[in-house]
Amino acid sequence: MTLDDLQRRLAEFAAARDWQRFHTPKNLVMALSGEVGELTALFQWLTPAESAAVLEDPESRAAVLDELADVTIYLARLADVLGVNLLEAAEAKINRNESRFPVDRFD
Amino acid sequence: MTLDDLQRRLAEFAAARDWQRFHTPKNLVMALSGEVGELTALFQWLTPAESAAVLEDPESRAAVLDELADVTIYLARLADVLGVNLLEAAEAKINRNESRFPVDRFD
Amino acid sequence: MTLDDLQRRLAEFAAARDWQRFHTPKNLVMALSGEVGELTALFQWLTPAESAAVLEDPESRAAVLDELADVTIYLARLADVLGVNLLEAAEAKINRNESRFPVDRFD
Amino acid sequence: MTLDDLQRRLAEFAAARDWQRFHTPKNLVMALSGEVGELTALFQWLTPAESAAVLEDPESRAAVLDELADVTIYLARLADVLGVNLLEAAEAKINRNESRFPVDRFD
Repeated sequence: MTLDDLQRRLAEFAAARDWQRFHTPKNLVMALSGEVGELTALFQWLTPAESAAVLEDPESRAAVLDELADVTIYLARLADVLGVNLLEAAEAKINRNESRFPVDRFD
Repeated sequence: MTLDDLQRRLAEFAAARDWQRFHTPKNLVMALSGEVGELTALFQWLTPAESAAVLEDPESRAAVLDELADVTIYLARLADVLGVNLLEAAEAKINRNESRFPVDRFD
Repeated sequence: MTLDDLQRRLAEFAAARDWQRFHTPKNLVMALSGEVGELTALFQWLTPAESAAVLEDPESRAAVLDELADVTIYLARLADVLGVNLLEAAEAKINRNESRFPVDRFD
Repeated sequence: MTLDDLQRRLAEFAAARDWQRFHTPKNLVMALSGEVGELTALFQWLTPAESAAVLEDPESRAAVLDELADVTIYLARLADVLGVNLLEAAEAKINRNESRFPVDRFD
């Protein structure tokens, strides 16, 4: 499944349930933010080292995967409603970051 | 550019600057959350209708694309560090949602 | 109960359970952020007008009060751990905002 | 300055600028969330130990105080618009938490 496929499937899912009227960019930004909040809650008391091992416990693994899925879903849906290509936008941003943080400063 | 390509490029970007030590899942969740906060700020005073037209103004358009890029970048990087396939996780979640919200309830 | 009383009570609550070691500023910022995410989720599909009436439904009222309490608790605890007086900081900020947004520009 | 005083001053500030129309609970939740995002960004790359010393550097101190002020301001304003007493809500929640997490389990 590509990001395009995901967006197509989410659009159909929303249309079949007449949920498009809820899917304004403003509402979808809030939904994305709410899901990131739930993801954050899973990591809040972990040390950085514990956070790196979070998938080893089956219960934590399921919870983290579930929240990452929700974040991905709302980000993909938001971009689709706005008509933004997320991968192009990200690529353009990395190109700008390559200039802002030239690698020879880190040698 | 696919999501895989993006993740590869982000991994190289971090390695070239010796930033992997900052890229624990805990820190990346915070970075993702911070960027979603900046995205939220762009929409906070807009009505839902205004939010649907947010890309029409060139300045707002650039700001929204920039924040969506940052959100995508940190989500992709977080997933890569954790070893999670975001598109598979999202697909599995939609499949579960199809059962939770059967479409005939919405006819 | 004043904000000072709340902070004292939260400090005792944490001490009695040996939770101070979890209460680093970094962790408490994440906890605050997670609770704001839960609050956001309660408002995400509401229109602005619906959001103004959110307390009229008893179930929504209980949920909103519960999340506002959690946000207040983690903000108060974070400030206490950092040694910051929130009300003084807010007052100083309003004073700066009075200069940034002079009222005669809005007449 | 008490929390009540802060809320009174924020209400006057908004009224003098005709900003009440923007201050729906939905919008204020987003503003609160945006400010928590900015606060989060200040802590994202810090270790827990570094986060405990964040106020020692004058520049970081000013930035953290500024964001804590903004978070406090929007939380206070949101509660005022909703007609919620934050300190009472927090006290009620701590009372519930005393039952949920009895202290003798932690001895």
